[in-house]
Amino acid sequence: MTYPRYTSLARSLPANVPFVGPETHERARGAPFAARIGANENGFGTSPRAIAAMRKAAGDIWKYGDSQSHDLRAALAAHHGTEPANIMVGEGIDGLLGYLVRLIVGPGDAVVTSDGAYPTFNYHVTGFGGVLHRVPYVDGREDPTSLLAKAAQVDAKLVYLANPDNPMGTWHSGTSVVAAMDALPEGCLLVLDEAYVECAPEGTAAPIRPDDPRVIRLRTFSKVYGMAGARVGYAIAAPDLIEAFNKVRNHFGMNRAAQAGALAALQDGDWLAHVQRKISRARDRIAQIAQDNGLYALPSATNFVAIDCGGDGSFAKAVLDNLIQQGVFVRMPFVAPQDRCIRVSCGPMDQLKIFAAALPSALEAARG
Amino acid sequence: MTYPRYTSLARSLPANVPFVGPETHERARGAPFAARIGANENGFGTSPRAIAAMRKAAGDIWKYGDSQSHDLRAALAAHHGTEPANIMVGEGIDGLLGYLVRLIVGPGDAVVTSDGAYPTFNYHVTGFGGVLHRVPYVDGREDPTSLLAKAAQVDAKLVYLANPDNPMGTWHSGTSVVAAMDALPEGCLLVLDEAYVECAPEGTAAPIRPDDPRVIRLRTFSKVYGMAGARVGYAIAAPDLIEAFNKVRNHFGMNRAAQAGALAALQDGDWLAHVQRKISRARDRIAQIAQDNGLYALPSATNFVAIDCGGDGSFAKAVLDNLIQQGVFVRMPFVAPQDRCIRVSCGPMDQLKIFAAALPSALEAARG
Repeated sequence: MTYPRYTSLARSLPANVPFVGPETHERARGAPFAARIGANENGFGTSPRAIAAMRKAAGDIWKYGDSQSHDLRAALAAHHGTEPANIMVGEGIDGLLGYLVRLIVGPGDAVVTSDGAYPTFNYHVTGFGGVLHRVPYVDGREDPTSLLAKAAQVDAKLVYLANPDNPMGTWHSGTSVVAAMDALPEGCLLVLDEAYVECAPEGTAAPIRPDDPRVIRLRTFSKVYGMAGARVGYAIAAPDLIEAFNKVRNHFGMNRAAQAGALAALQDGDWLAHVQRKISRARDRIAQIAQDNGLYALPSATNFVAIDCGGDGSFAKAVLDNLIQQGVFVRMPFVAPQDRCIRVSCGPMDQLKIFAAALPSALEAARG
Repeated sequence: MTYPRYTSLARSLPANVPFVGPETHERARGAPFAARIGANENGFGTSPRAIAAMRKAAGDIWKYGDSQSHDLRAALAAHHGTEPANIMVGEGIDGLLGYLVRLIVGPGDAVVTSDGAYPTFNYHVTGFGGVLHRVPYVDGREDPTSLLAKAAQVDAKLVYLANPDNPMGTWHSGTSVVAAMDALPEGCLLVLDEAYVECAPEGTAAPIRPDDPRVIRLRTFSKVYGMAGARVGYAIAAPDLIEAFNKVRNHFGMNRAAQAGALAALQDGDWLAHVQRKISRARDRIAQIAQDNGLYALPSATNFVAIDCGGDGSFAKAVLDNLIQQGVFVRMPFVAPQDRCIRVSCGPMDQLKIFAAALPSALEAARG
């Protein structure tokens, strides 16, 4: 007898991992990275007020966090002009996606996403036995029209759209997303991942009523707020859907210091604006580095830039592998044709300088 | 059409919550508690070295935590004389229990526990469609013999045993647990929750080979290590079972500062010994307070004491409600006959003094 007796679903799951972490790379290569610009972390750092709040809360870490994340939810509701009943705080968008998929997707249920979109969403769908249907990107962007057409065709329970998109950095206007939602099939929930929206152009966030039962929006403190290691994300949705999370979530799962830090980060608009400016300049700099090497950088509404290396996926992979060897942590899309690119996170100029110095020889090695 | 289309399992789940948090109570009563001795948090606080490590890590919180918790797992393996492959670090025991149940329990699968044992385990089992079979406590203790007999009878995939026990504080010797395991039915995994074992008498931790495929042990930094708000627990089991967690867990779910804090806490044996002494004295003091009020305190191997209020569950509930009204946060077992008790966490003497002052009038009110 197999010991223990896993469910048939668990036995069927692959043991793969959506992402290899930078520390795992570093242990494999036996040396730290010189530039950590691969995981779309915010190298410009965290709000000093948030850091101070976390340091203060460390002295109280013997207490469990507030199971309702009351103060943070109240502040988020005020920030977005919603009610706290529209907000669910969770262990990053990854954690919230897991709960959401668990609530809605069972074995055989159809889910639609773009081919090459966020792998961790796919990981959860597969993990709960859902069947993924993928539509191609169109011109480097996720395509709401074909996503919703596919959703209607396969009777999808969920359709995933990231706006702005990861891994390409492309985006749609919020109004065009709302317009596309007219084609959302009945009973299909739009999962609108807005992880990067704080560094997108004005008008990218979709103007959606918080009580609209057709959509759940996901936000995070991991990206522009610079708190990836804290694990704080949140969902905005109709109160019934928010309440449903209470059936399955880890009620005391939030780190107490992270709750305090996120609240302070939300209240530090000056730091947010500072980071937004830094990201904007870093995007320009990365585009310039690409151009200096005869490559094309895709316009980006995120804190990273996809650089088209001018070849196919195996060429971009060779460039990436060489960069990793040189101590530059970057990543690349997993799926063709997006995998012609490498993806470089916005970081301080000294980090980008290391990237700029390494790129020519990486390209040469890949060509040779 | 219901919107969204939840799974039939999700629709069937109650919206209840295993525990009401102290902050939720405080908001309801409109005032903070004077004594926070209800959630078995460690009011003696966290290792200063752990706090310093978390404060240092706060400055790096823009980075994701190490998805493999490599350094912490290596230190835990050394601490327990196992290999890192025997250790899985997760978001508290609650998070790990969720993953474990998900891997093994599907709709209709039988699981055995004690009637009145840890409700969050039950929450996960129900949440994944499992069927709970409960056996009574015997003399205020979970009873391995009847647990394993029931497991054989219902062909259970999991059987849960907490040693020491929560909510009663009672315990078995580790060797008696191992002896009882001879009766473990084939294909039934023993979930041995040792959350409180660091404050139990020598010999309470079960001497189990880490590669024994019949058992998974769960430990935490939330109790004696004083890091409940950090969310760090770990499992010790055979490598195949540990590896299976990678199929379903939130790979980047660990808070980076919490990882650093747990590592420092593990290395601070002096603080652990200090807390163990404080807990021991607080247990004695709580027993004395009970005796001073004509009540019986159960012997405890944990950082809390169950006090038999001398009546039935509704009497103990009246005592508890009055204590809450007086600003003393304590809890009580959920199920008869254990619910004749209230459960008081070990805390500093000033907290116990508040409890001692409030108890006589709480008893009087309940009797009146």
